[in-house]
Amino acid sequence: MSQRAIIKDIFITPVAFHDMPLLNSVGVHEPFALRSIIEVVTDDTCGLGESYGDSTHLGRLQRAAEQIKGLSVHDTNSIYKICVDCQAGDISTGGDGMAGMVTTASVADKVFAPFEVACLDIQGKLAGIPVSDLLGGRVRDNVPYSAYLFYKWGGHPGEPDDEYGPALDPAGVVKQAQKIMNEYGFKAIKLKGGVFPPAQEVEAAKALHAAFPGVPLRLDPNAAWTVETSKWVAKELEGIVEYLEDPAPEIEGMAAVAKEASMPLATNMAVVAFAHLPASISQDAVQVILSDHHFWGGLRKSQTLAAICATWGMRLSMHSNSHLGISLAAMTHLASATPNLDYACDTHWPWKRRDEDVILDGALKWVDGGVVVPTAPGLGVALDREKLARLHRQYLDCGLRKRDDTTYMKKFQPDFSAKIPKW
Amino acid sequence: MSQRAIIKDIFITPVAFHDMPLLNSVGVHEPFALRSIIEVVTDDTCGLGESYGDSTHLGRLQRAAEQIKGLSVHDTNSIYKICVDCQAGDISTGGDGMAGMVTTASVADKVFAPFEVACLDIQGKLAGIPVSDLLGGRVRDNVPYSAYLFYKWGGHPGEPDDEYGPALDPAGVVKQAQKIMNEYGFKAIKLKGGVFPPAQEVEAAKALHAAFPGVPLRLDPNAAWTVETSKWVAKELEGIVEYLEDPAPEIEGMAAVAKEASMPLATNMAVVAFAHLPASISQDAVQVILSDHHFWGGLRKSQTLAAICATWGMRLSMHSNSHLGISLAAMTHLASATPNLDYACDTHWPWKRRDEDVILDGALKWVDGGVVVPTAPGLGVALDREKLARLHRQYLDCGLRKRDDTTYMKKFQPDFSAKIPKW
Repeated sequence: MSQRAIIKDIFITPVAFHDMPLLNSVGVHEPFALRSIIEVVTDDTCGLGESYGDSTHLGRLQRAAEQIKGLSVHDTNSIYKICVDCQAGDISTGGDGMAGMVTTASVADKVFAPFEVACLDIQGKLAGIPVSDLLGGRVRDNVPYSAYLFYKWGGHPGEPDDEYGPALDPAGVVKQAQKIMNEYGFKAIKLKGGVFPPAQEVEAAKALHAAFPGVPLRLDPNAAWTVETSKWVAKELEGIVEYLEDPAPEIEGMAAVAKEASMPLATNMAVVAFAHLPASISQDAVQVILSDHHFWGGLRKSQTLAAICATWGMRLSMHSNSHLGISLAAMTHLASATPNLDYACDTHWPWKRRDEDVILDGALKWVDGGVVVPTAPGLGVALDREKLARLHRQYLDCGLRKRDDTTYMKKFQPDFSAKIPKW
Repeated sequence: MSQRAIIKDIFITPVAFHDMPLLNSVGVHEPFALRSIIEVVTDDTCGLGESYGDSTHLGRLQRAAEQIKGLSVHDTNSIYKICVDCQAGDISTGGDGMAGMVTTASVADKVFAPFEVACLDIQGKLAGIPVSDLLGGRVRDNVPYSAYLFYKWGGHPGEPDDEYGPALDPAGVVKQAQKIMNEYGFKAIKLKGGVFPPAQEVEAAKALHAAFPGVPLRLDPNAAWTVETSKWVAKELEGIVEYLEDPAPEIEGMAAVAKEASMPLATNMAVVAFAHLPASISQDAVQVILSDHHFWGGLRKSQTLAAICATWGMRLSMHSNSHLGISLAAMTHLASATPNLDYACDTHWPWKRRDEDVILDGALKWVDGGVVVPTAPGLGVALDREKLARLHRQYLDCGLRKRDDTTYMKKFQPDFSAKIPKW
């Protein structure tokens, strides 16, 4: 049977799911996170992708989708070209669901990614193999993720505490870690910082190190610190963190910190597109790239990024935004087939409600702090149409159309500023 | 049907085919060129690869093959790891069939390449799609190749002239070009130099430029020139060549020439492995990489190289050794699915006898100086077992076990030296 399967239709469904009041340098997570669910349909089957849900991005996806119809699911070169060409003249910014934390990623790569994932899902289904096999085969059967800790309010203002409650000081962060580690069995910890003065966050990192001796630890203030402050933190956390993530803004800031820091510096802010690599590498600005297939142009381009890291002696980790099960499946397949993935991947998974997703239960199993790589054909996950309808209804009802942590924060702290560096 | 096809057996058959007395900086082609034909066998089908035929390389292929059996054809990550691991302790050099012109390519990449190509051939057959579709889909239906001209003797010593006859001066080179261009319709010309003093080769390039106005032209002396000589040639050939290929040895030599040359410098000698890229890029030593899947680790790694070229603003062309139809098919699929292939690819195709190959006739069609990309599943070529047996018999009978242009040359010119730079 010849398998140049043609794309007959593409459905893009915006969804919203409950999120907790997680704090970061630009504000606080709103009550709902937005995502887009992409269904690529052929005569025989359907492939799934997941991406950002901001309306700007949805418009871009829709514009590309119209032109992608009629192409083969294997013709990703042409699909990519459409994603490049149909953004011409688009001068809108953002749309990445990252609230200003990644502003210069390639728009074409962001638009292309979910279509590519969906096409790989179909390619795998047609060939009877999991996506990990399309990517070169699993080098690990269980993909390790990290415990992604956040300073947070107890609950959204005016609502009762959520199941995690508040974490607003080192003791609160350790308590949160204990809960999340107990539940998932994570083997690495990441703390999102940039919320409180650096001395307090250093103290929290030290408290985590003491409470979880031997567990690799990371701190990520989202570029909230100056170069000088970053150097001070780096000195304080020598031997305590495995890497320091985006301490200072921009490639130049990271390069200045890297000159003195004893630990590697990681980024998902200074280097977020292939175009940023030459400048970063020439200055040895970062030593770890946090890849993310949602903005690096899909799974195969993320593998290219991995090969670039291997070639230039950089290490590789994985970034996450708030996401649902399709993305977790894609991240897991990618990580499973990437030999030089050096760290546990980040995921926001614990922060979403257990009953909110768009996929049928059972496909993704958490074991020992990792996700067992699905071995069914394609991504190995299937849409639960009833759940999809529910989260789409939630999207329609919640009124949010883009992620804006800053405006939400200002409702409660009118003098809040998202300006970085802050300290 | 699930398609984790398992490799049951691997056959590696050395073959020899007639070659013409083509001159280069290290000597002259011997009467036979050696290749290895790789058959990867699963329960249902078989995949083909082609590589160097030197005995050192054959031993390495065989050693890897023993361990690759039992793996899935999709598990190229594990196959690559075997190719790395089983070369541990191997301190032999060469084995690349390039007579010292590429000495530091990654051994693992050279060993892996034909197995990867054969696995992709099978993956394509199982999925019912051509290899070009596995690689992202064709961006061109006809892959352009260049007229690869050589200074040459009329025939091997003691034998009558071959069909091309001698080309030992500018007029001879132009005559050769006319014959080869007439027959194939090539749209670009490459002259292999490094044979005569630079002034004569400059004259030949100018004569070609005059005889074929508007046809892109390249000159490749295989690093036979000093930096100073290279700069002089670069000045002489301003506006005449589209790129100058490997004028001077090593990354440092190329970087020194590049500082003054007005045209891009290309290489398949100074940068022949991923490990060479950082140093070359940091010095802007070369502006065009001549990729070659046989030593860059197969088709997917060649795509990674293409992405690196795109990221760092380098351009991309393709290198060739003497090869048979399996390699031509693989080169053609790769080139067809590589958007940023900027130049016509090199091929030695015209220099082999028309009746000597290992594939069934008819799969590869030359049209207008290019090869029509096969659209049958996999590589789209099939073994002709009778021809394979004939070329294997030729290998057994010819007595050659490695490529050695220099020793062969010294038989006729005892004072010949392959030392570079020469001028």
